[in-house]
Amino acid sequence: MRAFAFEVRAEDGLARSGRLVTPHGVIETPAFMPVATFGAVRGISPEELERLGAQILLSNAYHLHERPGEDVVAQAGGLHPFTGWKGPWLTDSGGFQITSLAARVRIDEEGVTFCSPHDGRRRTLTPEKAIQVQEKLGADVAMVLDECVSDDVATASLRSRAAMERTWRWAERSLRAHRRVDQALFGIVQGGYSPVLRRKSAQITSTLGFDGHAHGGLGLGENAAQREELIAVAHEALPRHLPRYLMGLGRPSDLVQAIAQGVDLFDCVIPTRNGRHGILFTRAGTLAVRNARYRSDPSPPEESCDCSTCSRYSRAYLRHLLHVNEAFGARLAAIHNLRFYRRLLEEARAAIRGRSFATFRTGVLDALGAPAREPQAEGGLR
Amino acid sequence: MRAFAFEVRAEDGLARSGRLVTPHGVIETPAFMPVATFGAVRGISPEELERLGAQILLSNAYHLHERPGEDVVAQAGGLHPFTGWKGPWLTDSGGFQITSLAARVRIDEEGVTFCSPHDGRRRTLTPEKAIQVQEKLGADVAMVLDECVSDDVATASLRSRAAMERTWRWAERSLRAHRRVDQALFGIVQGGYSPVLRRKSAQITSTLGFDGHAHGGLGLGENAAQREELIAVAHEALPRHLPRYLMGLGRPSDLVQAIAQGVDLFDCVIPTRNGRHGILFTRAGTLAVRNARYRSDPSPPEESCDCSTCSRYSRAYLRHLLHVNEAFGARLAAIHNLRFYRRLLEEARAAIRGRSFATFRTGVLDALGAPAREPQAEGGLR
Repeated sequence: MRAFAFEVRAEDGLARSGRLVTPHGVIETPAFMPVATFGAVRGISPEELERLGAQILLSNAYHLHERPGEDVVAQAGGLHPFTGWKGPWLTDSGGFQITSLAARVRIDEEGVTFCSPHDGRRRTLTPEKAIQVQEKLGADVAMVLDECVSDDVATASLRSRAAMERTWRWAERSLRAHRRVDQALFGIVQGGYSPVLRRKSAQITSTLGFDGHAHGGLGLGENAAQREELIAVAHEALPRHLPRYLMGLGRPSDLVQAIAQGVDLFDCVIPTRNGRHGILFTRAGTLAVRNARYRSDPSPPEESCDCSTCSRYSRAYLRHLLHVNEAFGARLAAIHNLRFYRRLLEEARAAIRGRSFATFRTGVLDALGAPAREPQAEGGLR
Repeated sequence: MRAFAFEVRAEDGLARSGRLVTPHGVIETPAFMPVATFGAVRGISPEELERLGAQILLSNAYHLHERPGEDVVAQAGGLHPFTGWKGPWLTDSGGFQITSLAARVRIDEEGVTFCSPHDGRRRTLTPEKAIQVQEKLGADVAMVLDECVSDDVATASLRSRAAMERTWRWAERSLRAHRRVDQALFGIVQGGYSPVLRRKSAQITSTLGFDGHAHGGLGLGENAAQREELIAVAHEALPRHLPRYLMGLGRPSDLVQAIAQGVDLFDCVIPTRNGRHGILFTRAGTLAVRNARYRSDPSPPEESCDCSTCSRYSRAYLRHLLHVNEAFGARLAAIHNLRFYRRLLEEARAAIRGRSFATFRTGVLDALGAPAREPQAEGGLR
């Protein structure tokens, strides 16, 4: 019996709602994964994450490989006992972080060679090594090492094509290296901004036998219409019975748009990072709680919210804590934002089941107003 | 009926255990007050503080005056509703912070004039203003504005004497300005390192009608024997039926020594600040959890500890979080250290009641070994 299974239980247009079964719990999809880069979600405890309804956390295999090292995590029995989050984990391979953050990156057929942003030392990460690290970490879902290219189609389709083809060969090597039957392995669709390459990448990746598929390299500069097309052509080629994950995105509006196209999983640092910077999500749009107008505002961040922040604290207190850079402020803001995402996805699932997702989506987008001008993807270390 | 009362219920030598009744709860003494400079204890929630047994929190009136402003707190109904900590609060006036941190400080009879470390603007704090701010904040206990001098006796007794005498005149003005009957007001004994001046200061302060008395300006450079004498001469002059508070100190060894001399209240940033820097308190001495030897250590910070950190997390995980500067690490470490202080004081109270405090004190000091070389007082903003 497989420890891992996915079942689509309701569809509404292309949107779908399902259940992703993992060894550490069942995830109702579409789902949002809070980001715990180093094995903790920015000051938030596992108990708080459970209370606010987090279903699965994402960590970064490359960062954990650097510190504390996968052997330390393995000795503790893996990520679950090491971190105290007993629910499902997904680890990203870190390919994106390396190619976007490290210095002196050289990519060849063997793998990625780079100078560590942590200690400056020269390291090589191969597809096999990325699997080995992730098997030691023991997440429920692992990701293949991919080469992330965000070039524009017209100027660099050759480079995009080369990256895509290498990602495909790396995918095969990853699958051969993968041993743990209690861990799913997801492939990643690349292809820059070229619909042709994305389609080709999805076609090839879908034949390799992955447990799920991801869109890589999006949210880095393409516009909404481009992204919609890139997702659409990939979805046409990807098997419908496996989960689809849009990596690193995004804003609430990005989520509802992508859900409408049939995406099942999301991760993004926006809820925690924006919270830290005083940007709170509400169904009426974002609230910049550091603003002077909230100086004495006794109301909670969002009236209708049931999170532990909104049920106990005022905008005035939150504003004050963020202004004096007190860690408790970042914690309260992150809890609210993560709860906001959880509720948004919960309602999206209900709307799909009720075959009213189009109305739900329009309602959310109308309420949020024009897309907020926030960065869509990770600006620094994830 | 007074909202504020203090009763000594057990004595053992000079050590004493009692109950301090405030409008927001009863404090068993000797007690340690976690420091919430800006109205929150460094990333820790009121619920967590309650669970770990905190009885009273300390905040800083001067810092809250700068941000968010006492009017904001007053509009929220005071510190208790503003911060969500419903138990007793004590506010320090901020005299120490100003004279030690601000630039271009000028002290004259009227008050302290200085450049704000926050916005560089010139401000004046008078004894009356310090009371007015604290009445608006609404803590259960307020402190007079004092002038803190840490000069050596031999070199600057004249300055110490002038400061002491001014503190005495300020104390009278503070008492005249104080209106709230639901708020206690404590006087502060000064006098630098001169036993003669300290005795004199205590004698005068004790005649003015304060609800309690504090030792100010200690822990800034004097040695243990000096401090013991300075506390002793003051205690000879201070009324025994009122609480005595040693401001800003200290290490566990400082606490048991001062309790032996009859001190009832303490505050210090050491538990939270040391935690953040990876120094954990245990009854066998401090544990530098960032050390490489704990890289894979599965044991909790302290085996015998019942705190939420020790019951769930390993030294290896804590070390990792602190190394990658993840806020959750500072939170876990602070919770352990604050719980350690709470347990230490709980045992001290029991030992006093059982008339075995001398044995308890020797046991604690022996187990802790030679006094650890940690800074005793606040190095930066409290």
